Amino acid sequence: MKKLFYILFLLVLVPKSGFAQGSKIDQLLFSTLIESKAYIDKGKVADYIPELSKANKNLVGVALVDSLGNLHTKGDTKSKFTMQSISKVIALMLAVEERGEKYVFERMGYYGTDKPFNSFEALEYRHKPLNPMMNAGAIVTTALIKGKDDEAYKKILERVRYITKNEDININEAVYQSEKETGNRNRGMFYLLKNFGLFDAENEESLNNYFRQCSIEVNAEDLAKIGYFFAHNGTRFDGDKTFYNPEISKLIKSIMLTAGMYDYSGEYSSKIGIPSKSGVGGGIMASVPGKIGIGTFNPSLDEQGNSVPGLYIMEKLSKELNLSIF
Amino acid sequence: MKKLFYILFLLVLVPKSGFAQGSKIDQLLFSTLIESKAYIDKGKVADYIPELSKANKNLVGVALVDSLGNLHTKGDTKSKFTMQSISKVIALMLAVEERGEKYVFERMGYYGTDKPFNSFEALEYRHKPLNPMMNAGAIVTTALIKGKDDEAYKKILERVRYITKNEDININEAVYQSEKETGNRNRGMFYLLKNFGLFDAENEESLNNYFRQCSIEVNAEDLAKIGYFFAHNGTRFDGDKTFYNPEISKLIKSIMLTAGMYDYSGEYSSKIGIPSKSGVGGGIMASVPGKIGIGTFNPSLDEQGNSVPGLYIMEKLSKELNLSIF
Amino acid sequence: MKKLFYILFLLVLVPKSGFAQGSKIDQLLFSTLIESKAYIDKGKVADYIPELSKANKNLVGVALVDSLGNLHTKGDTKSKFTMQSISKVIALMLAVEERGEKYVFERMGYYGTDKPFNSFEALEYRHKPLNPMMNAGAIVTTALIKGKDDEAYKKILERVRYITKNEDININEAVYQSEKETGNRNRGMFYLLKNFGLFDAENEESLNNYFRQCSIEVNAEDLAKIGYFFAHNGTRFDGDKTFYNPEISKLIKSIMLTAGMYDYSGEYSSKIGIPSKSGVGGGIMASVPGKIGIGTFNPSLDEQGNSVPGLYIMEKLSKELNLSIF
Amino acid sequence: MKKLFYILFLLVLVPKSGFAQGSKIDQLLFSTLIESKAYIDKGKVADYIPELSKANKNLVGVALVDSLGNLHTKGDTKSKFTMQSISKVIALMLAVEERGEKYVFERMGYYGTDKPFNSFEALEYRHKPLNPMMNAGAIVTTALIKGKDDEAYKKILERVRYITKNEDININEAVYQSEKETGNRNRGMFYLLKNFGLFDAENEESLNNYFRQCSIEVNAEDLAKIGYFFAHNGTRFDGDKTFYNPEISKLIKSIMLTAGMYDYSGEYSSKIGIPSKSGVGGGIMASVPGKIGIGTFNPSLDEQGNSVPGLYIMEKLSKELNLSIF
Repeated sequence: MKKLFYILFLLVLVPKSGFAQGSKIDQLLFSTLIESKAYIDKGKVADYIPELSKANKNLVGVALVDSLGNLHTKGDTKSKFTMQSISKVIALMLAVEERGEKYVFERMGYYGTDKPFNSFEALEYRHKPLNPMMNAGAIVTTALIKGKDDEAYKKILERVRYITKNEDININEAVYQSEKETGNRNRGMFYLLKNFGLFDAENEESLNNYFRQCSIEVNAEDLAKIGYFFAHNGTRFDGDKTFYNPEISKLIKSIMLTAGMYDYSGEYSSKIGIPSKSGVGGGIMASVPGKIGIGTFNPSLDEQGNSVPGLYIMEKLSKELNLSIF
Repeated sequence: MKKLFYILFLLVLVPKSGFAQGSKIDQLLFSTLIESKAYIDKGKVADYIPELSKANKNLVGVALVDSLGNLHTKGDTKSKFTMQSISKVIALMLAVEERGEKYVFERMGYYGTDKPFNSFEALEYRHKPLNPMMNAGAIVTTALIKGKDDEAYKKILERVRYITKNEDININEAVYQSEKETGNRNRGMFYLLKNFGLFDAENEESLNNYFRQCSIEVNAEDLAKIGYFFAHNGTRFDGDKTFYNPEISKLIKSIMLTAGMYDYSGEYSSKIGIPSKSGVGGGIMASVPGKIGIGTFNPSLDEQGNSVPGLYIMEKLSKELNLSIF
Repeated sequence: MKKLFYILFLLVLVPKSGFAQGSKIDQLLFSTLIESKAYIDKGKVADYIPELSKANKNLVGVALVDSLGNLHTKGDTKSKFTMQSISKVIALMLAVEERGEKYVFERMGYYGTDKPFNSFEALEYRHKPLNPMMNAGAIVTTALIKGKDDEAYKKILERVRYITKNEDININEAVYQSEKETGNRNRGMFYLLKNFGLFDAENEESLNNYFRQCSIEVNAEDLAKIGYFFAHNGTRFDGDKTFYNPEISKLIKSIMLTAGMYDYSGEYSSKIGIPSKSGVGGGIMASVPGKIGIGTFNPSLDEQGNSVPGLYIMEKLSKELNLSIF
Repeated sequence: MKKLFYILFLLVLVPKSGFAQGSKIDQLLFSTLIESKAYIDKGKVADYIPELSKANKNLVGVALVDSLGNLHTKGDTKSKFTMQSISKVIALMLAVEERGEKYVFERMGYYGTDKPFNSFEALEYRHKPLNPMMNAGAIVTTALIKGKDDEAYKKILERVRYITKNEDININEAVYQSEKETGNRNRGMFYLLKNFGLFDAENEESLNNYFRQCSIEVNAEDLAKIGYFFAHNGTRFDGDKTFYNPEISKLIKSIMLTAGMYDYSGEYSSKIGIPSKSGVGGGIMASVPGKIGIGTFNPSLDEQGNSVPGLYIMEKLSKELNLSIF
């Protein structure tokens, strides 16, 4: 019924409103956005970090940076939300830049998995994380970025600002404090990882940097630009090539495909086929190699921690624009 | 020293011999083949199935079907070996054709994993296999193909013959008997899977079909043609589209990327980035979406069960021809 | 309410009926039996083997062989049921007699566990069963008893008949056929165990012997006699010492304490403190070292597979007669 | 050779020296002590906590409190060492006294296991420790003892002093600091356990109390008195019954049998059959129900963390004095 209503709304009202005017891609983004709203009630807002539970479930936004670097947006693409796991991609980039791929991946695996993002099971038998997209792995990559106190975090923030050319991006202090206070599972993993000698860290500042990077606030447009950046091997949407690096970019896209959507990654790879990374703040950042970047936002999550409307948008765009890499 | 010898051989002798004359791609295949031989001694021939241990470690072959469907070959590309796990791809194709993706994947996952190909751990807590590329998953897909006695196997054989247009392809009876006699781990999994109600199977014939499909003998050229077939969504190298099916083809390439190279899949995806499937008979079948198919053969395996020279060839070709999908 | 009814029944009717006349121990057995019936509805009859589901939930019996070898019984102590896991104790005895403790325990562990009786998880990482009281372990002990075809089973049957001095004990053919037909989980473990080289077995007859021993029909009195036999280090209730063996008897009592009540063993050890073995046929066989043997029967099982009224009876007797070994 | 030397020493020199004069039990203790020294080189001193590695491998002591409360000692029974895991028994006692068995065991299991003492695997799938003798479980029991800052630790210390009537017992500050500094694995578990809501703890003082209790220094005589205390259900060796409590004592002895010797517990139970608890400081505390207490000391440990000479002594005494509870 609800779906029917949206389709009617789309057919009847939209042409009159004039919102969907413009290019074919804008029309597709708009119709997909409208349709995706039917999925809002199929998920729920993350509540394991108290601050996250305050998110507005009804906000939906989709942004796309096309192959020429032009931005297309529909819906709530200016609404801010915290990066959460999407920040893991940036931390991985910096760790590999500073330490080299070999050094980093001696301290974690390249594995896909059926385990949830916060699993610590592998630490018992493997003594290192399965991959850099799970919490355990990202705690290590952040700890491998050089610098005292909050320097690693600042590097991550700077890189996000660079890629998005958005100097307004900043930390959400309330979320950071909330993550820190309730982050005992991550804290537990931090000490286990330290015990296995995966990094030197004098105190919990390194863990705090992980909490901080997760609390960086972006919007869907920023995510689309990040997606574009990796799609074009480190070329910014405006053509700047300061951090151009095909090797690291390919590595990151590969890891995103294998493990970027948590334990849904394998199925997502089959159904959608685009290297993507989601965060429990509600964002999905997708990177179509050599082509476009996509950012979606809606905080209604499924059990794996992925936005349900976000997944719908990604699947629709993948099919309509033939974006699967397979 | 050995490597140096090969390079000298390449520089001095080859031009005179005239072998490497021809297109750029033929030259690349030839030099890569020669270089790969330096890796023969870094692996060892599979011995857990007695018949496999008889393989000749020194045979190396590489075949490539280019985007126009033309075959390029160097080395021992006519040498026969058994498909082993590569047959899992064909079994998956048939199972999905006959039962639908939903039905098949209600009985197994899409997961990547850090577990070896013969792991049964997931059956304990998940009551189904992690993916169709592990033995457990492939036993299920084969059992889901309809037909009595050895009909499922015959369908697989027919499909392999069709894709390769090679009616000479047949079972290696000695390997089949050897697999059957020593296959108690697979037999154990077969009964556990049956216990979890994943398939109906009156007797062990369904398991025997799995052993049979593993024992189908192909050569590197056949593998290149299979790779081409999936690269072009089910179009045969001669353009025949009898089994054209983009959905199943994308599914298969995605699953190969996630899990085709056993627990090395994640790292292979980062380093090489081509949907591929290897077998302990020594073959690697690779499928570059929309482009080419590659087949390699050499039975000297690393600990994960992948051919060491085969991996070298794939990495070299991926870099030189820019084949990574990322 | 129900409980109150039983107590009233006990206080008002029983003295008139004269059933509870006799020794203090007989009175205790009787009152405990009556009280235990209040727990019948807290469990349910095993249904994973179709034949077992036919058991009558309302039958309850308790038998005790006192330190002088005298039998005391109350309730349905003549009702037959299959030994199921209780037979594992006899198989262990015979395997150790024939092969020695060292040989047997090189092929399995002495471990307690939180895993259910039919778990095969340990086979993956340990390549042997955790202990001889889990299905996997018992399949091995049975396979280690020498003899062709059904000889191992016949030895087990003979030993049960000897210990109980009851030549009427025999197999329940319907249960055996049912176990065999539906025993794919055990069959799967059998082949995995065989794969790990834990025993030689030409065919499935060895597994069938396991199914056969589980299908031996006994009653609560027989169990009490078995309990007495191990309590007195291999002395039969009538004083016969043909199989007197303190070492094996201590081993068996120890293993029963550690693992005899499945994953409830640890808690049972704390609450009741008597080496015991239960079976999903509804029996519990208990052995108080140097003192008495107890047998209970009622097929209403809890989630771990132990009879709920049986557990009540054991706890009551342990407290009233101060039977805990701790 | 070495063993032969000891036996000669025993036969020839000892009678002259007069050391072994006295009761039969003293003679047994003495000969056992001498024999046990042959096993010193079969183990090695714990080194995962730097301070522990300073222990003198050649010190061996055995103490026994007989059923009348009389102390018998041979060897280095005045040598001090830290309690380590043996303190877990006292923490369990206090936690159950203050919170009740039900409350405590809703937060951990009664399970035996094949996992090492520092395993955290069960926390992933069970969200609580397997038993109170593993590190994870003991961190919880200590955290459940009421009191701020180091009060829980002080209660444990007081109880140890009470049971042993030894006011000289105190913490080894160097070991405590060493445990605290290198205890990241335990620290990791502490935060995971806190995350699962198993206890309230404002800061790491609760974990520090765990480190403190492990660092309490005792000698073999103290351990024998602790063993006696639990053997007699909370009666001190001098007859004092301030903490008499059969229920808790039986619980503790049962848990020691199931899990007191780490993953060797099952085999120890079969071979020796006495509720015992060992510590990586080199101590073993054993409690023969209703009879005697034994304490042994020697810091040469096997892979499970048990003293090799200590195990020899326990096995010899169990056999010679018929102490097995089975």
